[in-house]
Amino acid sequence: MIDLRSDTLTKPTAAMRQAMATAEVGDAVIDTDPTVEHLERFTAELLGKEDAVFMPSGSMSNQIGIRIHCERGTEFLCETEAHIYQYEQGAFAQLSGLVAHPIAGENGVLRVTDVQDQIRPETDYMVRTALLCLENTHNRWGGRVLPHDETIALCDWAAENGLRRHLDGARLWNASVAKGISLSDLAAPFDTVSVCYSKGLGAPVGSALVGPRDLMDQARRARKLFGGAMRQVGIVAAGALYALQHHRDRLINDHEAARKLAVAACRSPMIRARGDRVETNLVVLDVHPDWGTAQQFCEKLEQAGVRSFTFGKQAIRLVTHLDVSPEQIDRACKILVEVADDPVADTADAAQDG
Amino acid sequence: MIDLRSDTLTKPTAAMRQAMATAEVGDAVIDTDPTVEHLERFTAELLGKEDAVFMPSGSMSNQIGIRIHCERGTEFLCETEAHIYQYEQGAFAQLSGLVAHPIAGENGVLRVTDVQDQIRPETDYMVRTALLCLENTHNRWGGRVLPHDETIALCDWAAENGLRRHLDGARLWNASVAKGISLSDLAAPFDTVSVCYSKGLGAPVGSALVGPRDLMDQARRARKLFGGAMRQVGIVAAGALYALQHHRDRLINDHEAARKLAVAACRSPMIRARGDRVETNLVVLDVHPDWGTAQQFCEKLEQAGVRSFTFGKQAIRLVTHLDVSPEQIDRACKILVEVADDPVADTADAAQDG
Amino acid sequence: MIDLRSDTLTKPTAAMRQAMATAEVGDAVIDTDPTVEHLERFTAELLGKEDAVFMPSGSMSNQIGIRIHCERGTEFLCETEAHIYQYEQGAFAQLSGLVAHPIAGENGVLRVTDVQDQIRPETDYMVRTALLCLENTHNRWGGRVLPHDETIALCDWAAENGLRRHLDGARLWNASVAKGISLSDLAAPFDTVSVCYSKGLGAPVGSALVGPRDLMDQARRARKLFGGAMRQVGIVAAGALYALQHHRDRLINDHEAARKLAVAACRSPMIRARGDRVETNLVVLDVHPDWGTAQQFCEKLEQAGVRSFTFGKQAIRLVTHLDVSPEQIDRACKILVEVADDPVADTADAAQDG
Amino acid sequence: MIDLRSDTLTKPTAAMRQAMATAEVGDAVIDTDPTVEHLERFTAELLGKEDAVFMPSGSMSNQIGIRIHCERGTEFLCETEAHIYQYEQGAFAQLSGLVAHPIAGENGVLRVTDVQDQIRPETDYMVRTALLCLENTHNRWGGRVLPHDETIALCDWAAENGLRRHLDGARLWNASVAKGISLSDLAAPFDTVSVCYSKGLGAPVGSALVGPRDLMDQARRARKLFGGAMRQVGIVAAGALYALQHHRDRLINDHEAARKLAVAACRSPMIRARGDRVETNLVVLDVHPDWGTAQQFCEKLEQAGVRSFTFGKQAIRLVTHLDVSPEQIDRACKILVEVADDPVADTADAAQDG
Repeated sequence: MIDLRSDTLTKPTAAMRQAMATAEVGDAVIDTDPTVEHLERFTAELLGKEDAVFMPSGSMSNQIGIRIHCERGTEFLCETEAHIYQYEQGAFAQLSGLVAHPIAGENGVLRVTDVQDQIRPETDYMVRTALLCLENTHNRWGGRVLPHDETIALCDWAAENGLRRHLDGARLWNASVAKGISLSDLAAPFDTVSVCYSKGLGAPVGSALVGPRDLMDQARRARKLFGGAMRQVGIVAAGALYALQHHRDRLINDHEAARKLAVAACRSPMIRARGDRVETNLVVLDVHPDWGTAQQFCEKLEQAGVRSFTFGKQAIRLVTHLDVSPEQIDRACKILVEVADDPVADTADAAQDG
Repeated sequence: MIDLRSDTLTKPTAAMRQAMATAEVGDAVIDTDPTVEHLERFTAELLGKEDAVFMPSGSMSNQIGIRIHCERGTEFLCETEAHIYQYEQGAFAQLSGLVAHPIAGENGVLRVTDVQDQIRPETDYMVRTALLCLENTHNRWGGRVLPHDETIALCDWAAENGLRRHLDGARLWNASVAKGISLSDLAAPFDTVSVCYSKGLGAPVGSALVGPRDLMDQARRARKLFGGAMRQVGIVAAGALYALQHHRDRLINDHEAARKLAVAACRSPMIRARGDRVETNLVVLDVHPDWGTAQQFCEKLEQAGVRSFTFGKQAIRLVTHLDVSPEQIDRACKILVEVADDPVADTADAAQDG
Repeated sequence: MIDLRSDTLTKPTAAMRQAMATAEVGDAVIDTDPTVEHLERFTAELLGKEDAVFMPSGSMSNQIGIRIHCERGTEFLCETEAHIYQYEQGAFAQLSGLVAHPIAGENGVLRVTDVQDQIRPETDYMVRTALLCLENTHNRWGGRVLPHDETIALCDWAAENGLRRHLDGARLWNASVAKGISLSDLAAPFDTVSVCYSKGLGAPVGSALVGPRDLMDQARRARKLFGGAMRQVGIVAAGALYALQHHRDRLINDHEAARKLAVAACRSPMIRARGDRVETNLVVLDVHPDWGTAQQFCEKLEQAGVRSFTFGKQAIRLVTHLDVSPEQIDRACKILVEVADDPVADTADAAQDG
Repeated sequence: MIDLRSDTLTKPTAAMRQAMATAEVGDAVIDTDPTVEHLERFTAELLGKEDAVFMPSGSMSNQIGIRIHCERGTEFLCETEAHIYQYEQGAFAQLSGLVAHPIAGENGVLRVTDVQDQIRPETDYMVRTALLCLENTHNRWGGRVLPHDETIALCDWAAENGLRRHLDGARLWNASVAKGISLSDLAAPFDTVSVCYSKGLGAPVGSALVGPRDLMDQARRARKLFGGAMRQVGIVAAGALYALQHHRDRLINDHEAARKLAVAACRSPMIRARGDRVETNLVVLDVHPDWGTAQQFCEKLEQAGVRSFTFGKQAIRLVTHLDVSPEQIDRACKILVEVADDPVADTADAAQDG
């Protein structure tokens, strides 16, 4: 079985397990944990920020990022398909009482013209707009890398209008490798950035929020509130540190593999990759209704040996990662085309023919 | 000065004041207030529901309506320009921890095709979709009356998919008069409806939430929580009751006045009424950028004797009501065209010419 | 029937109704309402504060007072029997996410020694202590007036320790009259004070929060959020203003009446007034278990013509007010003793004897 | 340095590290993680419940426990010194909008007579009482084991009155060993129990909530909301599983060590162990004001080689655990007495004498 459902599925490597087994640890709640400190310092430096806070998940990292920026009575702007709005159980409202203000971008990209009239005027009728949230790479838009100049322009606009900037950079490592832009350059327009070690990098657990020291102090306090403060968690941080030190460069392989899948998809009129191009390790394929539903496509793929996720009614998502070999990708390309060339409607007829 | 900023500006009439001065009252928190009871019963009957709860404002009525339908961890669907999402300070999130899921309709009207893929699938990543909220007439879309058949279809779809239905009917009285459809027919597709006495009907204060008895019991409890339970409030309810009994039919005059304003607006290429037609007492005029900004248009109108509200950067809203005479409307029409015919850019030139 | 359940039961007088019927009004949401402004200014001056905000209820006034003092992640100190903690449906937590930190006082009075170790140390394990809330007169402790020197000492301590001070002064008018201390002196130790027009003063509806201008601006915004912003509410404010101008001095009569009830109660060993003395218009009577339960006592009283409220399992509360005549008080005293002298246990036997 | 600040300080043993290094893992968010499943099943069986949910911390486990029992608008009863009320940053209010209703017990123990009048009557003035929370062993009361019969009586009362029961059993393992009562017997009176692997058992990270399957499904959903769902977290769960399988019986040694400390403390009139006896691995020592403050005592101990935590102004807490040898305990006893026999006030004099 070739499992392309998510890059979170990767298992820790032997070297990573060795790093975890021998990690120096401490009580990170009462004292500090030296390995966590090492990871936080290393991550902050990579992203060009003062401090980083290790988090059990990307959801906690994002939601605490939003919370520390947004006082009671405020909202944040985000793209309609953003993970923080769509996928995190509305924690911003449930846990922090905040309003999401989603705005549709073109292919997932917001431009200044999309948002410039969206800041709420100062009136007792309305919440106050406090924050702009972006996502790089953009999950729902097929791992798209945000155009760097647009991002700078958008964040400049936000800063000029008194908005804080938060980046959901769960797969920022991929964006950096894909575009050859340093992580610190990608992070520079933002006050805070959330990154995940447990996705493309292959670590078993963990994320981090990075930003200026005073905000990170608030984030540590919020992490305690959310129940995310763990004791000798250097065990886990050691895996994340290993991944960060050894698995970034190889992401280029995942991108190459994803492009192969997209190219293969071009060979059938029944499926096409979302966005204008595949840039990183995610491929969102829109399934033509003439073929059948995404659910059916997903099942056919699985029967043929490839696992994927549906993304709404007429799309599926494929993700390349550390635990998929080049041979498996070649096989997956073949299977993808075979399935696409065999629409569900036709299947019944074909079966009769057979 | 002709004040067309809002129909909430109307002052109580002499007869209404008399009704208030002589109202029978009681402690509505400890016992009951007979006039409030009368108003609630009368309103519930008009709308064809079991019970009604008197509220100090439409915001409280809407936000409590949402709260009683939506458990922790849920969201509601609404049109992007809905009052509950845009204008009520995000109380659904601030006070109730709920998520708004705004969807853009065409001219403010949502259709089944707009919403049918918007119910969240059952997954731990997402909130649950619990409620559909509509608004009739639609404030931001120029007092538009929701097409009744579409509303029925939409609510049928919602019910089939396990969603509750709430109507922000702040100006439902206007919709009923404009279309000749009874209030109870307009309310029938919904579980709960919020109506306001203090808008077109001209009462000084008050709204009501109507619906089935068990939900109204919950609404009364929530009203206490929000601080909206008042004592001998029959004084105020008497004004609302008078308005409800005497001022509904005359709304047709306000609609006629609004149409006059819209027709007048047609005479200038610089302004046009939003939506395809003016149906009730609101006129939203889009101001052509060649003329100048809405802010400038609003100021010019005021200098000429007509007060209005801006509605974003390039639109203003005019509202006709009880306290505006036919003569004033004629004058307002004239002023409107004069202002529209005198763009701000030209003004500077004209001044130089002068 | 002599109704001593609450001073909120009073009906507006003819003069008050006249004031309401002729009140000058305006749209208090869009513009201002002149009568509301008059009431707010008059109240602020009486209490020696910069500004006041008219509120639909004492609950809203208190809960908004707490909200504007307490940021996310904080708690307030209060006496265990405080109305804000016991009786307002936990709105501080439900609507504002705040923690109550109740501390038992002696006869309802907190002293510095009670609270001095109760401020949370600065640690990520704990909320931060932000506010001290007191209640004057203290409802659950029989309308007790807080000892003024203790209050000053306590508020000084709070200020020195960085805590804001809020007073639930629903019946502060009574405290002022009872002790001959001016309202502004009673209010001076506090940042904000909530007062009610609808209790002893006899107005049909309304309360106010008073305090410094910047906080009152926040309170107005919060009032909109809670749904408490009403339009031509000067109608109601006129009643409150009349009550404030004409009904304060006569509270001394209510206090005299309450003392009569307490003195009558002394005549039976089965009931005794809570606290060391009756100072204002509330009398909380502890019912000896040998007599029966408070519920039974309350019912017996009602059968004899006096209505009261139970206050827990073994206590009832009697409240004197504007709508109770001296003759009714004399009768109530007599009934009270008769009921107290006829324990429920004995009643059954007596009935058999009869 | 002998570190008696907390049993959370223990470092993973070599065998535990080996178990973590070789753990079988999976993506616990998308699929399942076999080691987590094993740990959850084993824990649930030990406690005699249907299911268990692995959590990153005891705070999350407790706060999610409270959340799933308490709907909007409810409160929970707890002992005033309970960890969930004192130490978890008020998450019940901040994240879940709930009210804590603390009640002082005798030496930390609540009895039916303490709580029987504390359930709120059904009225719109009040929250509803939904849950009783207990803590076994009781941290603030020196690791006291709740008297089992009292607990059963209290939980029976709660059940009869419609209250759910949650146990903060962070150190329930200690209670079981100390009293020779099985974990399942100790857990039986409760709907849900929170247990910690990272305290006396010595695992680096992790807690679990146990209870009936339907509630645990809700707990898993809430864990996602809180950001506590982690991927290949079997790495960590393997350490917890090892601790659970190998370190429970040895807790008796920690208890013996704690008793030694308490006995030593008896030798000075300046300190005394809180509660009537030391039953488990916590010793709370009240420091006599004549000696000086707890802060000073704590510092003197540390200078002499023993680390402890202050517990308020006049108390310190000592905790025995896996990483403290019998020799260290003997030395700590000696140091404790030496420090106690050398009051701070005298020190200054002695210095002068010298």
